[in-house]
Amino acid sequence: MPTHAEETEGTADVKLSPRHSTIETLVGRLLEGDRGAASRLMTVVENRQAGYRETLRRVAKHTGRAHIIGVTGSPGAGKSTLVNELIKHYRGLGKTVGVVAIDPTSAFSGGALLGDRVRMLGFTSDPGVFIRSMASRGQLGGLAAATVDVARILDALGRDIIIIETVGVGQDEISIAGLADTTLLVEVPGMGDDVQALKAGVLEVADVLVINKADREGANRLANYIKTTMRLLPHPEGVWLPPIVKTVASDAVGIDELAGAIEQHRTYLMERELLEKDRKERLRVEVLDRTRDLVLKRLMRNLESSGKLDQLLDDLMLHKTDPATVSHELADGIES
Amino acid sequence: MPTHAEETEGTADVKLSPRHSTIETLVGRLLEGDRGAASRLMTVVENRQAGYRETLRRVAKHTGRAHIIGVTGSPGAGKSTLVNELIKHYRGLGKTVGVVAIDPTSAFSGGALLGDRVRMLGFTSDPGVFIRSMASRGQLGGLAAATVDVARILDALGRDIIIIETVGVGQDEISIAGLADTTLLVEVPGMGDDVQALKAGVLEVADVLVINKADREGANRLANYIKTTMRLLPHPEGVWLPPIVKTVASDAVGIDELAGAIEQHRTYLMERELLEKDRKERLRVEVLDRTRDLVLKRLMRNLESSGKLDQLLDDLMLHKTDPATVSHELADGIES
Repeated sequence: MPTHAEETEGTADVKLSPRHSTIETLVGRLLEGDRGAASRLMTVVENRQAGYRETLRRVAKHTGRAHIIGVTGSPGAGKSTLVNELIKHYRGLGKTVGVVAIDPTSAFSGGALLGDRVRMLGFTSDPGVFIRSMASRGQLGGLAAATVDVARILDALGRDIIIIETVGVGQDEISIAGLADTTLLVEVPGMGDDVQALKAGVLEVADVLVINKADREGANRLANYIKTTMRLLPHPEGVWLPPIVKTVASDAVGIDELAGAIEQHRTYLMERELLEKDRKERLRVEVLDRTRDLVLKRLMRNLESSGKLDQLLDDLMLHKTDPATVSHELADGIES
Repeated sequence: MPTHAEETEGTADVKLSPRHSTIETLVGRLLEGDRGAASRLMTVVENRQAGYRETLRRVAKHTGRAHIIGVTGSPGAGKSTLVNELIKHYRGLGKTVGVVAIDPTSAFSGGALLGDRVRMLGFTSDPGVFIRSMASRGQLGGLAAATVDVARILDALGRDIIIIETVGVGQDEISIAGLADTTLLVEVPGMGDDVQALKAGVLEVADVLVINKADREGANRLANYIKTTMRLLPHPEGVWLPPIVKTVASDAVGIDELAGAIEQHRTYLMERELLEKDRKERLRVEVLDRTRDLVLKRLMRNLESSGKLDQLLDDLMLHKTDPATVSHELADGIES
């Protein structure tokens, strides 16, 4: 789990501090493709360290070029292997790749379970591949915000393709899917309850459906099941219908087809000017989420520390006032 | 499901409106024991109708006398039958009773499933019993706030005992338990997975554990299982240890013992001055929750309607700014 520095949001003196020149220098090096600078800046934004807002402000105008691919699905679906094969594919085309791999946080160590990551180490000698692991818990500003901020650093580093890989677990799966231009949902045959794994809500977030380990028994049954389920979803004429791609990532089977489906989706988005529209909608959700989190954090800090709440609780116990009145007074005080 | 009037929080002119005198009149009648006035005021506070804040303000000084008993547990545990028997018991002692029965909201009709309530109709001719059913969904200000507000009306009506009955489903179960002075957790033998039904987190909220339908096979096994599980919880010397009471509510068996356990818990709270301490802590949680809900509602309304967000999103798409900066500006604007 990352250690979090004391949050220093909105430190007014940051512009005159030595730290300012450090961030400016680091961002300058980032834009020249310096991977060490990228690493340090990712740590700054992931952990909300001093300078994180300046970092995001400085990189903003250098983002938006990369195509962002989200990869989600059940544990054991072979996502890491699939991502490895996609990296090889894109490197073969001469494209640079950045990966944000969100690992389930261990309840015991508090750290990310990095086992699967080991398989990616084959890329350490290739400067065209940058892999960043993040723990799924412990992000001060929320996992979605931390993930998208780290992806922005990769974007400013000049990566052509950014892959966000996450173990999909219910709500997280859906919210992380909201960070990518193209979202892959990876399923495998024989994982037990198809209905559970393929709730309509999860299918809805997918732009491409991947049946990995497709050499296993039940691959066709799963494909038919997915097709049947998707027919239950509304699908207006002309709107993107998620293709189903079968892969055996461990044997590098089906990767070209998968990359082709991703490219088709990107083309679909571009031709209809949906890429910008989708990104704007994601920004809207992100800004609302971030603002809500900030307001709540400040509210709680304010109420707990001011001592005002204690006084009001004493009045409440004496029935001098009531909770609805107190809540409105407190809310009014924050906003007036 | 209750229909919700447009929320009218903080209407400054309420003091001069005809509605003001209506609320004043209704509260006056409530304090004289008028059940019709109680019904109307419950509708006002449950649905956040105009005048709800005035209602809560006016009744505040007339609350705090009733002992509030929470009854929670799995569907099918026989809670309604148990509550019926408790009502009979307290009526036999000459005490007046109010019940807030939270019914699971039907996904189909949108209304509360009132089947179980029918069994309570035997009390309609007794003015000493007041039963209010509430749907579990659709409360504008949240279920917990609506429930506690309705209970306050019963308190001001002069009820000696207020019973809040709810189907416990995960989080709801735990949050509703935070509304009562004494919380009963009702379990039955043979409901399948004991571990699932008796997660430590649920046991922790219970002040009295009821094994209903205790004539069924497995009652002793369940009791032993609960005892074993409770030993895993921290239990400092002198702190209340939830007793396990066996009942067969349908045959009125064990009700005196149950009422005795409830009375012992109340005595325990009173002797140690914990009743006031617990109520103050519940008020603290309630005020924080209410304030948070208000601030969030206003924030979203403000951001969505002002058009400011749209302008900022355009700037974001042009990379003139970044989401962290925008969120801080919006949050600062709300609080400055």
